[in-house]
Amino acid sequence: MPRHMMLAGYILVPGSHFGGMWRHPYSETDFCDRAVYENVARTLERGCFDVAFVPESLSVPTGPKGDHDALLKYGAVGAVRHDPSHLVAPMIAATRHLGFTITLSTTYMEPYHLARIFGTLDHFSEGRIAWNVVTSAGESNAYNFGHHPVLDHAQLYDRADEVVDVCTRLWTSWDKDAIVRDQASGLYAHPDKIHRLDHEGAYFKVRGPLSLPRGPGAGPVLMVAGVSPRGRDFAARWADVVFAIQSDADGMRELRRDIRARAARFGRADTPIKLLAAVQPIIGETTEIAQARAAYLDRLIHPEMARAFFSAMLGMDLASYDLATPIEEVLRAEDGRTAVDAGAARPWLQRVVDERPDHTWTLGEVAAKLSQSSSTPRLIGTASEIADQLEQLFVSEACDGFVVTPTHFPGSFEEFTRAVVPELQRRGLMRTKYRHDGFRSEIGVDTRSA
Amino acid sequence: MPRHMMLAGYILVPGSHFGGMWRHPYSETDFCDRAVYENVARTLERGCFDVAFVPESLSVPTGPKGDHDALLKYGAVGAVRHDPSHLVAPMIAATRHLGFTITLSTTYMEPYHLARIFGTLDHFSEGRIAWNVVTSAGESNAYNFGHHPVLDHAQLYDRADEVVDVCTRLWTSWDKDAIVRDQASGLYAHPDKIHRLDHEGAYFKVRGPLSLPRGPGAGPVLMVAGVSPRGRDFAARWADVVFAIQSDADGMRELRRDIRARAARFGRADTPIKLLAAVQPIIGETTEIAQARAAYLDRLIHPEMARAFFSAMLGMDLASYDLATPIEEVLRAEDGRTAVDAGAARPWLQRVVDERPDHTWTLGEVAAKLSQSSSTPRLIGTASEIADQLEQLFVSEACDGFVVTPTHFPGSFEEFTRAVVPELQRRGLMRTKYRHDGFRSEIGVDTRSA
Repeated sequence: MPRHMMLAGYILVPGSHFGGMWRHPYSETDFCDRAVYENVARTLERGCFDVAFVPESLSVPTGPKGDHDALLKYGAVGAVRHDPSHLVAPMIAATRHLGFTITLSTTYMEPYHLARIFGTLDHFSEGRIAWNVVTSAGESNAYNFGHHPVLDHAQLYDRADEVVDVCTRLWTSWDKDAIVRDQASGLYAHPDKIHRLDHEGAYFKVRGPLSLPRGPGAGPVLMVAGVSPRGRDFAARWADVVFAIQSDADGMRELRRDIRARAARFGRADTPIKLLAAVQPIIGETTEIAQARAAYLDRLIHPEMARAFFSAMLGMDLASYDLATPIEEVLRAEDGRTAVDAGAARPWLQRVVDERPDHTWTLGEVAAKLSQSSSTPRLIGTASEIADQLEQLFVSEACDGFVVTPTHFPGSFEEFTRAVVPELQRRGLMRTKYRHDGFRSEIGVDTRSA
Repeated sequence: MPRHMMLAGYILVPGSHFGGMWRHPYSETDFCDRAVYENVARTLERGCFDVAFVPESLSVPTGPKGDHDALLKYGAVGAVRHDPSHLVAPMIAATRHLGFTITLSTTYMEPYHLARIFGTLDHFSEGRIAWNVVTSAGESNAYNFGHHPVLDHAQLYDRADEVVDVCTRLWTSWDKDAIVRDQASGLYAHPDKIHRLDHEGAYFKVRGPLSLPRGPGAGPVLMVAGVSPRGRDFAARWADVVFAIQSDADGMRELRRDIRARAARFGRADTPIKLLAAVQPIIGETTEIAQARAAYLDRLIHPEMARAFFSAMLGMDLASYDLATPIEEVLRAEDGRTAVDAGAARPWLQRVVDERPDHTWTLGEVAAKLSQSSSTPRLIGTASEIADQLEQLFVSEACDGFVVTPTHFPGSFEEFTRAVVPELQRRGLMRTKYRHDGFRSEIGVDTRSA
């Protein structure tokens, strides 16, 4: 089978990586309507996408002081967050081939509950599900689980390792041929083909078996979005697919190569772990139209939403500054008083400033830039030009596919399906119809062995 | 509005209160197929049922020594247990009016997770959901959550009180008019209409708000199946509807009256808490056919499944006895060595023996009797005769409606819908179509006030 480009559709509302999404005049705004998601799923399936990808957060978005006001007021990223597994459930029922990546955190849920949710969905989707395994380190999440012991970075991943280990054993606790269902004799299942785990670990004691026969996929495909060294090890140990937000090809390539190298240490040298990179396509019939649409999108970013989102990212309360204040001036004033979040903020900021080193970037400009697409590459152009960029990244093995993040919802997916997908298919980079032997072989992941 | 009889369909597999369910030749046997449940939902909606009711257990069924072998071998009650909320999700999508009662335990889940699951389903079902709130005391459940502290009976309900309290506040943390969604101005929501809880209790610290706008029902209708004094208080405090397995009208009436009396102590003197009683209808075109069908069903109960189920109920390993051994002899031999589970077992057993005091009941006979319908009244007769019995219980205010438990799945619901429902409608006891103002007014529960 030739290597084919994987595609995922990113389902994050009311903003996506583009913070002004819900304000686009063609965008849905009611993100509590089940039909909206059913329609997205049908669109992605028309476009031969591999999966719909649903991220997770365990709280409303909050600012540096834990305040949600400005972020909810302007409908920032994640202002509406459904239970990811229940967001997906009706999308499963509305489709036949599309896969679904459900992000759920290992930090506050029990492995038995997680295993049962994915067990049911494995059956109900006929094996079309993936689990994006995450840990929850954020303060704003802990706010809703404040009675839990605080785990440090290593402990979060130790717990996650144990959760995934227990879950994979629960998903295989019934042998493939355990079920008999012979009405005449009354033999329902072979009890000797149903196994206890008797797991006793640092975090959990789980006896098993799961209360469900083995599903068609023996549990979900596993995805991880690890970036830190410990997170990369976690991905190397468990992931079939890695999700990455990297601003350029070099970042993607380094992450992909490193995780594959680390996988050898976990006895997975032969596993071609796939990397999907987030992109934000902005399509036009001509290059000029695409550029005009990008400029139009920028005008949808509310300056106060952008300020609040940038404040949250830096962990600094920037409400008192005039948006025209040079960013260097803001940082000089703030750095002495407030710790800069070292995680995601500074490298991104440095890259932005370096784009135009002679320009005096203002607070408002930098904040708006963040809400355009964060670290996600913007691909602006005709369908053919966008396909060129995707092809280049794919063929050069910077990545194995893409997570398409929308700028209007779900119109971005409709446009991508109408315009870019046929171009990718013409080039032989994508399949033109789904294969009959299922989601796992579609994405190159075999069923977990017994 | 005249008082109308509520109807629920009970979704428990492979056995139901009738342990031989899956062996019935008309019964489904693949309980992992989503379509089976979608069809059940459509059938119940054709029958103008109020809700589909999904119970819960957090493990496979186990015997007195924690062994699952015999119970899984013969497909006993609960040998297959889906996540109840995910069992319901596709049924919601397959219907427009039917309600859904999802049983989830408060013992091992976080209130934020529970609130978000029901928050999403409240929106996606347009307010058609109920939560049957339970605690998990059983040993076999603790086996899969063995790292949790063991809570005593009172603590289980204290925790449940706090969970439900937090959830109800999360479901109302966005005011009704908090959402604006004005694309032109960029105002998504009024932040001053979205409220933190800042809850700090004995078990939980939850800041809130929920990451979802208020749902059409401001959360699910609350159901409780409390029997103990503490359980009855819990029902009196929270329940809109009570689910009861009572073997006769007196038991139903006493429970209903007592919970309503207790409700006054929680400031709910004016709340007419409804009681739904489990029944097992066996319908025939003539009385004789119905009786023959009941006898046929009895023959589907595998003696070894019945023995295993009875052993589990008593908490005694009865594998070594000949099934023809008189039950009194078994109990004399066992009681000295093994503690008899005082909960559900002995009163039921006494009632069975009292039915025929001159008869020497054998172990096999008593076990088979348990697997016939447990404590659920069997209603055997023509549609009209069954309607007579339901009417009598309803009109005499022993209860407010019924949970129909199936003997074959889902054929029992189809038969009930074809035969008994029209008879109840002719008598004016049931509506003939769904009302347009929603599930809550259907079942006489107003939307939770702001």
